[in-house]
Amino acid sequence: MNLLETTIARIRETDRAAAEAARSRQDSLTKPRGSLGLLEDLSVRIAGIVGTARPSLGPGAVFVMAGDHGVCAEGVSAFPQEVTPQMVHNFLAGGAGINVLARWARARVVVTDVGVASDIAPAPGLYIKKIARGTANMATGPAMSRDEARRAVEAGIEVFEAEYAREPFGIAATGDMGIGNTTPSTALASVFTGVAARDIVGRGTGIDDAGLARKLAVIERALAVNRPDAKDALGTLASVGGFEIGAIAGVILAAAARRMPVLIDGFISGAGALVARGLAPLSAEYMIAAHASAEAGHRAMLTALGLKPLLDLGLRLGEGTGAALALGLCDAACRILDEMATFGEAGVSDKKD
Amino acid sequence: MNLLETTIARIRETDRAAAEAARSRQDSLTKPRGSLGLLEDLSVRIAGIVGTARPSLGPGAVFVMAGDHGVCAEGVSAFPQEVTPQMVHNFLAGGAGINVLARWARARVVVTDVGVASDIAPAPGLYIKKIARGTANMATGPAMSRDEARRAVEAGIEVFEAEYAREPFGIAATGDMGIGNTTPSTALASVFTGVAARDIVGRGTGIDDAGLARKLAVIERALAVNRPDAKDALGTLASVGGFEIGAIAGVILAAAARRMPVLIDGFISGAGALVARGLAPLSAEYMIAAHASAEAGHRAMLTALGLKPLLDLGLRLGEGTGAALALGLCDAACRILDEMATFGEAGVSDKKD
Repeated sequence: MNLLETTIARIRETDRAAAEAARSRQDSLTKPRGSLGLLEDLSVRIAGIVGTARPSLGPGAVFVMAGDHGVCAEGVSAFPQEVTPQMVHNFLAGGAGINVLARWARARVVVTDVGVASDIAPAPGLYIKKIARGTANMATGPAMSRDEARRAVEAGIEVFEAEYAREPFGIAATGDMGIGNTTPSTALASVFTGVAARDIVGRGTGIDDAGLARKLAVIERALAVNRPDAKDALGTLASVGGFEIGAIAGVILAAAARRMPVLIDGFISGAGALVARGLAPLSAEYMIAAHASAEAGHRAMLTALGLKPLLDLGLRLGEGTGAALALGLCDAACRILDEMATFGEAGVSDKKD
Repeated sequence: MNLLETTIARIRETDRAAAEAARSRQDSLTKPRGSLGLLEDLSVRIAGIVGTARPSLGPGAVFVMAGDHGVCAEGVSAFPQEVTPQMVHNFLAGGAGINVLARWARARVVVTDVGVASDIAPAPGLYIKKIARGTANMATGPAMSRDEARRAVEAGIEVFEAEYAREPFGIAATGDMGIGNTTPSTALASVFTGVAARDIVGRGTGIDDAGLARKLAVIERALAVNRPDAKDALGTLASVGGFEIGAIAGVILAAAARRMPVLIDGFISGAGALVARGLAPLSAEYMIAAHASAEAGHRAMLTALGLKPLLDLGLRLGEGTGAALALGLCDAACRILDEMATFGEAGVSDKKD
């Protein structure tokens, strides 16, 4: 078996007994039962994921996967393609949104070039796993070969494992950088959710009405040319995906294999999550939806994944910014479960019967 | 003039020029304009509040105001009244939800007895500003005298100022503890929003259907007996309010007078915010709604206050727990504004025209 298959084979169901023990402890803490809402549910889910009733997550790691897209030749983005490598340098210098929010969440940022169109010099904090200099134009044929799709997913697994070996972490988060990547993500969303592209296409970084119409036409053309089959997740990634989207799927699979919660950022990460779930349905049990993106099709993705987002702040930046914010909430949820006093410990009277 | 009037006289409009400078800086940062959604708006609001284009807030302080309610004699709560002092001791011991979340947000918890029914011994971290041993039963007459209402609000101002003198802080948050206090809060909400009590009454800490019907009848009786006038905020607080609710209003006024953002927690804090706005309409410019509470009438409160909540996690604990979580988001928003690189600094190409 290859790395992809061995990783998938390691993914098991989450630990129901640990989740039940966590729920039972939540119910004994000095607050009306259920009064911390989603924070309680989140702590219970995390307990089931890591397999202990009072999980302590330790540091987080945000995996920002960068790649370029041949479909940019069709004029689908408001920003020029040169921004992808420029933003990679910005990540490495610590000046991007994800750097600020990861510092806030006390998490590290791990940047990977999975397929930026230009070459990026080796630098501390950068993994170079370049599959190719950008994907091919999916409007005229497959974005990548099936072998490249596999290598993109495996790049995510490899980077996750290498970074874990370098310095362990307890919670992972996904992020993306790739000018034009809402276009393949919308195509993937349409295939995996069964919703028509016209009902989920959005403005990405901010295209105008004419750009939106062009983008939709390009996506519809790509789907017609490639005819991807949702039952073949790797084939679908190859047809209308992106290298960074495949690598995000790999990070998710690696986290699930290690029984680690993984925060799914926004629209692009959601596309990666759909690929991961297509490859390994059980991986969805390890996913935590960070936020509801402002990008139009994100709700359909979350519905398909069966996930409820923690935050709804109108974010549409990507990079893992929403995931970093939600990482803070996961930390808070686990601390509530672990640090609050019980009714018995605090000598507080419980609810009247 | 008394403390209340001098405090109100110090409240000015927020600084529009600082807010515009902050918006202009947000638009120069390395991200598509507007792509950090509410986080951008939040940073701009805070800039206007504190009067600088790149605010650095420093530590936060969560003011937890505790008081008891004579209306508990009517059987309106699922928990016995003895829980109020028990929870005050839990706050002082660091075992309550607000302690955990304030530690998470690196904020201090400041506890005040404004009117707990039993006496609480002096302790570090506790302010004793007891107006009375609980309010009177508002179902049969006013909850407190007009003078007591004033003293409750002034207690909030005094504690805010004393704590600031002891150790300055840059952002305040409100919290409450008081068995039965969703009952007066619902009455206050009905008066100040004009929405009928039956449309906003909720289950508080978790009463059953019979309890809910009893609670509504009690609120309607209190409103009929006292006939509060929304235009007289202090009189309304006296009729159907609570000591801790008045003290929360005082914290809000004191924050606004110091040009400091103040996070409004949930339903009880929302009632305090309505009192504060009734006393000083400009104070609303300094309020940040932390979250959408699970308590039924909270949306109506926020609509009346013109505030949009940052979080929607189904919380209904009070204590300032939602405000502490939102405090973390305010910190993140200010750090984005201050720490992110601009397009020029990072050498990143801006959007195509």
